[in-house]
Amino acid sequence: MTPVPSGELAEDRVTVRLGPRSYDIVLGRGMTAQFGLFVRELLPQSQTALLVADEHTRKLAAPLTVPLGEAGFRTALAVIPAGEQSKSLEQLARLYDALYELKADRRTPVIAVGGGVVGDLAGFAAATYNRGLPLIMVPTTLLAMVDSSVGGKTAINHPRGKNLIGAFHQPKGVWIDTDHLATLPVREYRSGLAEVVKYGVIRDAELFEILECHAPALRNGHASILPSIIARCCRIKAEVVEQDEYEETGLRAILNYGHTFGHAFEIVGAADHWLHGEAVAAGMMCAVRLAQRLGYLEDDSLPSRQEQLLRAFDLPIRPLPHWDVEALLAAMQRDKKATAGRLRFVLPRCLGEVGLVDHVPLAEVRQILCDR
Amino acid sequence: MTPVPSGELAEDRVTVRLGPRSYDIVLGRGMTAQFGLFVRELLPQSQTALLVADEHTRKLAAPLTVPLGEAGFRTALAVIPAGEQSKSLEQLARLYDALYELKADRRTPVIAVGGGVVGDLAGFAAATYNRGLPLIMVPTTLLAMVDSSVGGKTAINHPRGKNLIGAFHQPKGVWIDTDHLATLPVREYRSGLAEVVKYGVIRDAELFEILECHAPALRNGHASILPSIIARCCRIKAEVVEQDEYEETGLRAILNYGHTFGHAFEIVGAADHWLHGEAVAAGMMCAVRLAQRLGYLEDDSLPSRQEQLLRAFDLPIRPLPHWDVEALLAAMQRDKKATAGRLRFVLPRCLGEVGLVDHVPLAEVRQILCDR
Repeated sequence: MTPVPSGELAEDRVTVRLGPRSYDIVLGRGMTAQFGLFVRELLPQSQTALLVADEHTRKLAAPLTVPLGEAGFRTALAVIPAGEQSKSLEQLARLYDALYELKADRRTPVIAVGGGVVGDLAGFAAATYNRGLPLIMVPTTLLAMVDSSVGGKTAINHPRGKNLIGAFHQPKGVWIDTDHLATLPVREYRSGLAEVVKYGVIRDAELFEILECHAPALRNGHASILPSIIARCCRIKAEVVEQDEYEETGLRAILNYGHTFGHAFEIVGAADHWLHGEAVAAGMMCAVRLAQRLGYLEDDSLPSRQEQLLRAFDLPIRPLPHWDVEALLAAMQRDKKATAGRLRFVLPRCLGEVGLVDHVPLAEVRQILCDR
Repeated sequence: MTPVPSGELAEDRVTVRLGPRSYDIVLGRGMTAQFGLFVRELLPQSQTALLVADEHTRKLAAPLTVPLGEAGFRTALAVIPAGEQSKSLEQLARLYDALYELKADRRTPVIAVGGGVVGDLAGFAAATYNRGLPLIMVPTTLLAMVDSSVGGKTAINHPRGKNLIGAFHQPKGVWIDTDHLATLPVREYRSGLAEVVKYGVIRDAELFEILECHAPALRNGHASILPSIIARCCRIKAEVVEQDEYEETGLRAILNYGHTFGHAFEIVGAADHWLHGEAVAAGMMCAVRLAQRLGYLEDDSLPSRQEQLLRAFDLPIRPLPHWDVEALLAAMQRDKKATAGRLRFVLPRCLGEVGLVDHVPLAEVRQILCDR
């Protein structure tokens, strides 16, 4: 990945307005030297800070200890193994131990430097240690920048269900330095593009069209437009979260477009090691086909346009043929968004508009999964 | 313990006003048959419910499955070992498993039937499974009725610190059936009286005087006045929590009178198996002596009145002589309420009024602990 050119950011700050829990997402590049001041302004009285990273992002986290030290923080860095399996009670206990060793008090921030796994785990530790510590998100993957670092969802996995254990805990601030993308493996970067496509389908037809226009450059991470695309995704996410912080009205659920299928693919297909965005990409294709099958979709060009765009980003467009259909259906009925085992999906009506559809017949879903 | 006579409740409902998180504490006796209706009214659409009890309270929890079944709930009962050591990640994982087996969805209530340990653990499971399930508290000890079941604090222990891991998660309702006290061992009942005394000292001089008048009857659990005392304590707790739900302004901290010392006694003196209220009783005596030593106390009769009342309830009035003073001090500096290791205490000024005192010199605290 090539770093994005500087000076192209249309927007360098997105505010998430949640009353007393409001916070800013700061976007820029090459901002390491300013990080200490950023955290100090958010937390004038803190004396200690725990950085959390994984094996891959420790090289991004370590330099942040310098400006933090200059800003008067005594820091420690906890490094977890990379990968989804770190979202466990065991790794959570390790973070609790690190906070204890640091003599953390209620003002000690947890600073998550990494992708979704680091953010979810460190965020849940922050949500629960001392009944809640301040959380700072430093997302270093495209996926985390546009999605998981914003909105306050934190979680670990149950042996039989992804994100089954968690809490809503909004960060005090989000720090997006696009220089961090330079070290990201290209497959992970493209996985993040799946969530970017998602925002276009659910809420922003213009964004979708921009992605179509710039697909070849975006595919390779060379697009100078990338930073403004990230900011645009953050703004959409902020708007949705502002209106439905705790996922109560159904609005926030639209962010899960492609995810009911996607989560099932991640569980049943665990051995195939798909990335989250890859599962979501195939999940969005299943969802758009389901919408068409149910007569919910009004724009018949959407399935092919979505497929073409996902293909342009080298993303999978269907589940793997050897995944067991009944196992996938069972996993979907266990989904957190399911109620009493009923299947519920976010389905597109047209480009930029989706709805929550309840009571989808099992037979229809099965048919979608069988058509591979 | 003899059941309290019926028909003596001055008050059968205390409302905790917390905006969208408001709830009622319902008080009465012999109310088991009405329990299903109570839960159904709170949760019209739930299909399943998980009861949590310990080895001692399972005999109180099991009968509740009947009215719950009649109200249309499919129930499961999870039984944890009795005692503080159950507030662990291991037991937490067992409750997550039980919820998974029940096919819990976001409407499934967790119903905690027991004392503080059951309430804290089950409450934390409810706070974190699926990012939050409804919680119903059925406190069965005096301590839980007047304190831990109200206010939304949930927690488990870290190997080196009590309640270090937790969340604020308000219940949907609290169900206090004083018939449940009939099976409570007398030592546990008296431990609960320590928290009742606490309410008098921090906020309600009249309550303290009522306790003094009825001490002999209360000591043996025969006082017909007990139900109205429980309601009065719940009302005080509700008022404090309403004004400082997340322990931010310092007001809620007054509920921790005696607890900074008390928690240290529980940690350092773990081998002596004091009950929580016993540690709080000795802690309140240390706190009142510290207030006197620092010149903070304005009413010189309070130490002896408080001591006399605690003695009347067979509660300890000082820490055990073999507990190491430096270990106690270290434990206090680790307390959740400590900030950057500074010692902070809730100290009485006069009967019914306490304040939060910061920066208490270590030497003064040491002196209080040495005077045994």
